[in-house]
Amino acid sequence: RAVELRISAACIARVRAAAKALGYRGNYHASTLATGRSYTIGLTTGAGGPGILAVDYWGAILGGIGHAARQGGYDVLLAGGSSCEDALDHAMQLLETGRIDALVAPRQLFRTLPATLFASRRPVVTIGGHDVGSPHDVRLDPGPGIAEAVAHLAALGHRSVLWIGFGRGGKATLPERRAAFRVAARAHGLTGRDLLIAEPESLRNQIDEGLAAIRAALASATWPAGVTAVCCFNDMIAVAVLELLRDRGVRVPRDLSVIGFDDLLGAAASPPLTTVSHCLAEIGTTAVQVVLEALAGGKPPAVSLVPSRLVVRASTGAPGTGV
Amino acid sequence: RAVELRISAACIARVRAAAKALGYRGNYHASTLATGRSYTIGLTTGAGGPGILAVDYWGAILGGIGHAARQGGYDVLLAGGSSCEDALDHAMQLLETGRIDALVAPRQLFRTLPATLFASRRPVVTIGGHDVGSPHDVRLDPGPGIAEAVAHLAALGHRSVLWIGFGRGGKATLPERRAAFRVAARAHGLTGRDLLIAEPESLRNQIDEGLAAIRAALASATWPAGVTAVCCFNDMIAVAVLELLRDRGVRVPRDLSVIGFDDLLGAAASPPLTTVSHCLAEIGTTAVQVVLEALAGGKPPAVSLVPSRLVVRASTGAPGTGV
Repeated sequence: RAVELRISAACIARVRAAAKALGYRGNYHASTLATGRSYTIGLTTGAGGPGILAVDYWGAILGGIGHAARQGGYDVLLAGGSSCEDALDHAMQLLETGRIDALVAPRQLFRTLPATLFASRRPVVTIGGHDVGSPHDVRLDPGPGIAEAVAHLAALGHRSVLWIGFGRGGKATLPERRAAFRVAARAHGLTGRDLLIAEPESLRNQIDEGLAAIRAALASATWPAGVTAVCCFNDMIAVAVLELLRDRGVRVPRDLSVIGFDDLLGAAASPPLTTVSHCLAEIGTTAVQVVLEALAGGKPPAVSLVPSRLVVRASTGAPGTGV
Repeated sequence: RAVELRISAACIARVRAAAKALGYRGNYHASTLATGRSYTIGLTTGAGGPGILAVDYWGAILGGIGHAARQGGYDVLLAGGSSCEDALDHAMQLLETGRIDALVAPRQLFRTLPATLFASRRPVVTIGGHDVGSPHDVRLDPGPGIAEAVAHLAALGHRSVLWIGFGRGGKATLPERRAAFRVAARAHGLTGRDLLIAEPESLRNQIDEGLAAIRAALASATWPAGVTAVCCFNDMIAVAVLELLRDRGVRVPRDLSVIGFDDLLGAAASPPLTTVSHCLAEIGTTAVQVVLEALAGGKPPAVSLVPSRLVVRASTGAPGTGV
């Protein structure tokens, strides 16, 4: 900038040397006032008690956001609130006062996200927000990982597979996962059946309670006969299945193969769980890429899909006798 | 402030009404320049790839930090780096340029923390930094939880208990945990023995590899005879123990009781693991309390200990036949 102002090279060098000798550091807020850029990306954490970020799901996404932001020369400001309304007010205020240049908003942490949020002149990118009219949404494509999971079972020789998911009155939570399972089973000529159980309340934040509720629901459910492998909507169901089978003396994978989804609880399960990775860090890094593209004046896509993938561990094998 | 300047109430009301009618929002950076307060607490995340925050250990601490900061009217800025040196330079710059009012630095994410960091005129609070001359350190007291764990086993009727931990050449990692176990065993008149195994590299970030390495070390170790319960240095060892026992046909807790430490993998284990909670969220909230006290001009203590506590699940019971 000094060059633009036609200040001589010798003068610039003298000023720089003096600044260095004096240990001068510019004030961040003064330079931000001058440039209009805070080099800060906000992440709203919803009505966050200590629970939200402690949940490894959000921690993993945040890890991806923090890493990608730093690589792009940005830092991440966490903006919570005492309630959903408070968190949104706070996020809007951060955008309007220039404290952050852009906002990443995980849809799932809010009952809804209002259109006023997307009317900000600064970029707002949602995670999993396809239902709220978000201008830029980043979300998982469950298809690739579930297709890999079913192909893995077919290659092992399984012919009859079961989907266990959440459903109230027959309507599945995140139905695209079950749909992907059906498509894949048909593609491999497998018999694919469904078992939908009630979804526990406050599932994500209370692992113990969630697992106990799922175990109880599974114990009273009627399992279809002849099934030699199950694919579960998430790792929590899969872990509850493992525990139930253990109590009943069914060995995994010798008698029954089990596959989870998320890769959150899988590594610590017994046996270690074959599961579909939710690719949470990639979701975070993709959200930041969309933010940076928008801040650079580009036109990022309205929807960015992150492909899931299978992680093979020890809970799958050749077909056994079933339950 | 307008009152101090003897501006009339009517004039103040007119200015406020006009600001409201025009939708005026002050610029955050301009007001921060005026007040000298950014209302931002920095958290350095070390040489963070996506891994660090994705690790539930750090996510849980961060959850506590975010919650307590918001309650105190502060937001949290995440400050990573491409290397430890880069992360420290970045943190120093954030402090010096006034972008953050205070810094929380988790000791364990750095090879060391230099004295220059603590020379900042803004508060710097470490987590687990008792060995680096930190002016304000927050850390876990493993004693209360381990004492509860041993008392729980003694009440169940166990007489001979084993500590399994990490050690190289006989020197234990975090020796105060083992020391607390010895003190508690003696207090209850139990026979307490030790089994120290090699600590896997990059333990925290690669659960699968860590578990496999621990399983291999345990499989080749000589277990003392007569032991009916084991207390483990962390949940990863406990989960590896469960898996090893499962392979050998030893039932938990009928044949052997198992207790972990951390409460990170415990809920998903099979059986659900009785473990000592690391109280990670409380460590985060305590760090923020120390920061806020220092920012308010108080003299927070040099060391703040957060007590651990026992979480009883299903891996402990009356004494069985042992391994």
